[in-house]
Amino acid sequence: MQIDIQFLPFSPDPSTLSRKTIVVIDVLRATSVIIHAISQGALEIIPVATVEEAFQLAKHFPQGTPLLGGERGSQKIKGFDLGNSPREYIAEKVKGKTLILTTTNGTKAFHSVSSGREVMAGSFFNIGATAKWCLDLDRDMLLFPSGDGGSFSLEDTICGGMLIDQFIKIGGKSVALTDAAQSAHILYQRFEDNLVEAFHVSTHGRDLVAKGFEDDLAYCAQIDITNIVPTFRDGVIRSSFAPSLSPQRLCRNREQRGRGSQVPKL
Amino acid sequence: MQIDIQFLPFSPDPSTLSRKTIVVIDVLRATSVIIHAISQGALEIIPVATVEEAFQLAKHFPQGTPLLGGERGSQKIKGFDLGNSPREYIAEKVKGKTLILTTTNGTKAFHSVSSGREVMAGSFFNIGATAKWCLDLDRDMLLFPSGDGGSFSLEDTICGGMLIDQFIKIGGKSVALTDAAQSAHILYQRFEDNLVEAFHVSTHGRDLVAKGFEDDLAYCAQIDITNIVPTFRDGVIRSSFAPSLSPQRLCRNREQRGRGSQVPKL
Repeated sequence: MQIDIQFLPFSPDPSTLSRKTIVVIDVLRATSVIIHAISQGALEIIPVATVEEAFQLAKHFPQGTPLLGGERGSQKIKGFDLGNSPREYIAEKVKGKTLILTTTNGTKAFHSVSSGREVMAGSFFNIGATAKWCLDLDRDMLLFPSGDGGSFSLEDTICGGMLIDQFIKIGGKSVALTDAAQSAHILYQRFEDNLVEAFHVSTHGRDLVAKGFEDDLAYCAQIDITNIVPTFRDGVIRSSFAPSLSPQRLCRNREQRGRGSQVPKL
Repeated sequence: MQIDIQFLPFSPDPSTLSRKTIVVIDVLRATSVIIHAISQGALEIIPVATVEEAFQLAKHFPQGTPLLGGERGSQKIKGFDLGNSPREYIAEKVKGKTLILTTTNGTKAFHSVSSGREVMAGSFFNIGATAKWCLDLDRDMLLFPSGDGGSFSLEDTICGGMLIDQFIKIGGKSVALTDAAQSAHILYQRFEDNLVEAFHVSTHGRDLVAKGFEDDLAYCAQIDITNIVPTFRDGVIRSSFAPSLSPQRLCRNREQRGRGSQVPKL
């Protein structure tokens, strides 16, 4: 089982993806939003690349049924129902709903890797469940940080590095790492005791703080608050559970790691 | 002065480079070869992308005057004079000569960034002189690891991270780092006490060991064995010295850092 991570978010050659499990990562904040919304009961999320596409797609649904969410320049888009803070995506607003989501980096990333055998949404929220499921599948993997306007993203890479850390600890010698995957693991080790610090030194994290979204940084650094691993297929993201990971086992995993982040009830 | 490092070796948009200083890095082994050859008195090096191009170009010179050097699959190319080990490029062979060089990654990289304001060749051999010169120029910079067959290269990134370390220590607060540059610096810090270890865990380093080039790893890990910074202009790499860096000052810098690598006389 080879683990790779692509440090820049251009579209890979589709022929290289068809046998691989892909994990799209946009910790600040698209995949955190997606995982949070699905865990709060959202029916499905349709990621689209542009604002125009979001409005056009909404016309195909009965009026008012899909919610529009996302950001440009980190801010809520005019005419949209929701922004890009996971804290907005709570059951009272999203339960049973279809969401159309467009963000600067994350929603495009899903389309860039749509040829993958499985395409999952990962963040710190569901990292244990994602790791377990990937190891159960036992395929070569590509972790796909969504980047920051086409550039390398520190926080997404560190999240990828934490996934790799779990692969190593659970999978042992069966896990082969590329140079990039080794590097992501080293970067994670640098920040593992203080993920929020990584957010505060990253370009995008500092930009979010400057725009008034500092509370999102601590919120998005929470680990294992759900065992849902949303998967992207045929243009839509829906709820999935790692087959062999019961909620009880997930809680046990979390206790064993002894991470004391405050976990909201989802 | 902003420092960036591009983790994957695709050609950047030329318009983004024209005001920047670029440092091409291919520690194992193209830029190590280039710096070594120039420091041993080679007149000039013409980097070309293909073996065919090398043979064609040689025809334009009086017979036997240019030396052909390089590798494919790390091995010397049939009909070439020299391979891709810096230890081959000694004064007895290269002094006063024009070299035509083609390697899998490094020689292509120079053409990928030819729009840069200055395009330098960097490796551990000349890292102090490169850092000093870049700081004297005081322009935004792009470090350009040549990669490994199009993929991320650990050893080149760590060399970039060491350059960044020197920028921070000498340049202080005037140096702004992108997420990628911060990450390269962290990766360097992980291996700074044992650069050869980094070579041994990297994909390309392990491949070189398997092919019988293990001695090149320790050789290429030598720091500051010359103060020459070769520069690429109009398709040719020639010798340059950092203007304000005398050989005496270079020696003092090395002593201050207290790095005890064995330094051959070049």
